[in-house]
Amino acid sequence: MRYELFYWPGIPGRGEFVRLALEDAGADYVDVGRARGAEAVAEGLEAGPRPPFAPPYLRAEGLEVSHVANILLFLGPRLGLAPADEALHRFEHGLQLTLTDFTAEIHDTHHPLGPTLYYADQKAEAARRAAVFRSARLPKFLGYFETVLAANPDGGHWLVGDACSTADLSLFHVVTGLRYAFPRAVDAATVDTPRVLALVERVAARPRLAAYLASDRRAAFNEHGIFRHYPELDGGITEGDDRDGP
Amino acid sequence: MRYELFYWPGIPGRGEFVRLALEDAGADYVDVGRARGAEAVAEGLEAGPRPPFAPPYLRAEGLEVSHVANILLFLGPRLGLAPADEALHRFEHGLQLTLTDFTAEIHDTHHPLGPTLYYADQKAEAARRAAVFRSARLPKFLGYFETVLAANPDGGHWLVGDACSTADLSLFHVVTGLRYAFPRAVDAATVDTPRVLALVERVAARPRLAAYLASDRRAAFNEHGIFRHYPELDGGITEGDDRDGP
Repeated sequence: MRYELFYWPGIPGRGEFVRLALEDAGADYVDVGRARGAEAVAEGLEAGPRPPFAPPYLRAEGLEVSHVANILLFLGPRLGLAPADEALHRFEHGLQLTLTDFTAEIHDTHHPLGPTLYYADQKAEAARRAAVFRSARLPKFLGYFETVLAANPDGGHWLVGDACSTADLSLFHVVTGLRYAFPRAVDAATVDTPRVLALVERVAARPRLAAYLASDRRAAFNEHGIFRHYPELDGGITEGDDRDGP
Repeated sequence: MRYELFYWPGIPGRGEFVRLALEDAGADYVDVGRARGAEAVAEGLEAGPRPPFAPPYLRAEGLEVSHVANILLFLGPRLGLAPADEALHRFEHGLQLTLTDFTAEIHDTHHPLGPTLYYADQKAEAARRAAVFRSARLPKFLGYFETVLAANPDGGHWLVGDACSTADLSLFHVVTGLRYAFPRAVDAATVDTPRVLALVERVAARPRLAAYLASDRRAAFNEHGIFRHYPELDGGITEGDDRDGP
């Protein structure tokens, strides 16, 4: 089975959640945006009886599936990255949807007025939103995943059951992106989430994933994606540290 | 089968997406927040091996399922409100996730700095975000659902296939809530989405749903939920019309 992933080239973005699953499983896939350019991704938004709202979307087995959580729900059982038990699989999908919400809030730290305006047009609002994010939302979300790991009756090495699932890979990506975007705030917040940190290490050490992370297929974080490093949003920065200022 | 819905009492909120499905199907369910109070809802967030992040969550068949889209994915086939075809069901779940994103953006028009601060603490930011929402995001989302209806090879009375699904009920709820929150902007935007308007009428006319909407089980929209009517966010309002001003 060959999978076709449609996502914008040049950023890890939301496509990375899907890439991590495909790479970890050693699946046969083509990253259409990188292979054929953004136009090939945009075309798929226009045509057909069931148009997706936005990338990423995935084609396989004659199906087209859009939205990260929907794609991972489809891929998990096929890639050996989902619990076989129904209760656990539905719980895992709920975790994925919490990660979806978390990701949207991370994006909105630099785009509190929405995706239509540039960051430069909403820097004052972003500073306020990022402060609330660092003090309240970041600890709340990370603390939730710490609680899930602590409550897991199967040992708490993984979020669900006793094996790695797509939710673990996605939590790895979120924490990795957060470390890029908010290194100071994440260092402070993760003092209280040792299980989350151990999970991130555990994912990074998986052989196929480690090989992917070291390869040139892995796009670097940058200031066009979800996870952006604007030092002025990371707290405790003096005026002179603002790279966009004065 | 009896379903237990856990959601905060006093607002339609995200719980309403689930209630509409249960009511439309004539399902046997208990609305735990209304029956036993908010404490009973909060308790379920604390205990157990698989804690949910937030309400709504649903218990049935010995399972617990959290997040609106996850709950509706579970309920749809059980309530006769999901396509039997796999491709169509996965497409419907993607639509539900787009409605999830749309709902979050609607919430953020009055809470652009996140859920931690009060509206009164972010009115200036809300005015900017709401303006972008009215001019760009509202037409984009409504236009997407219009396109889905127009592209549906099964006639376009419903979003997916030729029968009502939970996604149709959810779109009904979003448009109804938007009409409460942004009556002027929605009147203007829906001129271009006649199929969406017809779907909303079609859902409202379903006998069990019409009975529910006229009952006292249906909570009124208010300024504690997702869909809030702040006239100053609806565009074209003069100073004297601002009920919070001067």
